[in-house]
Amino acid sequence: MFVHSTQIRVRYGETDQMGFVYYGHYALYYEVGRVEAIRSLGLTYKDLEDQGIIMPVVRLEAKYTAPAHYDDLLTITSQIVEKPDRFIVFDVIIKNQKGQILNKAKITLCFKDATTGVQMRTPNSITDKLEPYFS
Amino acid sequence: MFVHSTQIRVRYGETDQMGFVYYGHYALYYEVGRVEAIRSLGLTYKDLEDQGIIMPVVRLEAKYTAPAHYDDLLTITSQIVEKPDRFIVFDVIIKNQKGQILNKAKITLCFKDATTGVQMRTPNSITDKLEPYFS
Amino acid sequence: MFVHSTQIRVRYGETDQMGFVYYGHYALYYEVGRVEAIRSLGLTYKDLEDQGIIMPVVRLEAKYTAPAHYDDLLTITSQIVEKPDRFIVFDVIIKNQKGQILNKAKITLCFKDATTGVQMRTPNSITDKLEPYFS
Amino acid sequence: MFVHSTQIRVRYGETDQMGFVYYGHYALYYEVGRVEAIRSLGLTYKDLEDQGIIMPVVRLEAKYTAPAHYDDLLTITSQIVEKPDRFIVFDVIIKNQKGQILNKAKITLCFKDATTGVQMRTPNSITDKLEPYFS
Repeated sequence: MFVHSTQIRVRYGETDQMGFVYYGHYALYYEVGRVEAIRSLGLTYKDLEDQGIIMPVVRLEAKYTAPAHYDDLLTITSQIVEKPDRFIVFDVIIKNQKGQILNKAKITLCFKDATTGVQMRTPNSITDKLEPYFS
Repeated sequence: MFVHSTQIRVRYGETDQMGFVYYGHYALYYEVGRVEAIRSLGLTYKDLEDQGIIMPVVRLEAKYTAPAHYDDLLTITSQIVEKPDRFIVFDVIIKNQKGQILNKAKITLCFKDATTGVQMRTPNSITDKLEPYFS
Repeated sequence: MFVHSTQIRVRYGETDQMGFVYYGHYALYYEVGRVEAIRSLGLTYKDLEDQGIIMPVVRLEAKYTAPAHYDDLLTITSQIVEKPDRFIVFDVIIKNQKGQILNKAKITLCFKDATTGVQMRTPNSITDKLEPYFS
Repeated sequence: MFVHSTQIRVRYGETDQMGFVYYGHYALYYEVGRVEAIRSLGLTYKDLEDQGIIMPVVRLEAKYTAPAHYDDLLTITSQIVEKPDRFIVFDVIIKNQKGQILNKAKITLCFKDATTGVQMRTPNSITDKLEPYFS
């Protein structure tokens, strides 16, 4: 299993008039979580795209347990529980500065050739880096 | 069962550099879908808030089947399959102007007293309007 | 002079915890205004991009006079006061359903070859359509 | 004069299909810039709101010189050139990791009583902290 944590601070523009982070903006937080998780492996999603591979999200499941508020310092923990193959799945937990769990999500992405749109297996550049975490 | 459809046009600022609508922006489309569905019943979500009731999202499940593109004219169909009680669930299907299904989602919301934060049952103002669709 | 008006309804996700539309989201409203203005001429910005021309914003000036609120039905009036040449300038006024002016903006865009990034004059497809309004 | 710099990384969801950061998202970057500038003074905007004071933006001027790209590490430099009185003005410069200037902006905000909506002078909690920079 691979686990990585990163932090972000809630922006004013991400709140809504309930005074909570709008439910759609968590997608950006999950993105930051998985991008930084990949960066910690010594890769970047940007490099992947430069090599002609895109990673669209195919499935999202999210549970909103407690609201995030303006200026909260959130910890986003992203886990890859299963060795990715045709899909890569990130299990995400978001906590606030008090350690309270606010949100749990599962995001499934696939890999596609950016030019043809054809789906492909997880590139070796990723599986090689993840190998140590699944053996 | 209650069913309602509405249309929106994809904005440029909602696309990302893949040339697709960013996966987080669908939350706004689901919102427009359910808000217009409620309006078609003769109610508005705004009135509900003015009466001190908020409707936070507690759960979101979304499947991204095909990408939405810039300037697409999307049809958002929102269904309430079960009579709401402690929660209200919207089943949403988004199609493009060719009738192609792009996205399916299930969004679960609850009702809370805006001042105390205490969860409440679906207000009578809503259940009364929905009654004909579930009898 | 060319003038065009269109309407949009404020989405919940566009408000912030002040209960106002976040100042950054007006950029989306200006975009809808100019895109629909161009469409009313019998062109679409999408076609322009399909022909390899992009229109990045180079300058934005906005005055926020009064706040827009959730569920407001806004009228966006976009004017082209001067015949476009190296730049095209949109003067925008946003009013709410009561006719109150909320926002005034001036947005300057240029035209670029999408492949080379080289700036170009306003394409003939646009100047031809605007000709009647400036003669 | 008061000057403060902070860094942010461009998120994928902030790009558009040109491959550039959408022009409306810079508003979020200016916000992060001024919020961190205020925090560096030993105050937070959150505290201000908790005291019943809101700071709506009344004017925005932005020049887009060069595009920001996905995953760019941006440096946002926020300056307060004049001692704030009825308004506070932030002059912002955004550079990328190569030191290239991408964007310059001037954002004018006022202070309002959150309950009454009445405009007020810059609170002493802010002017006291800024005093050393303007004497």
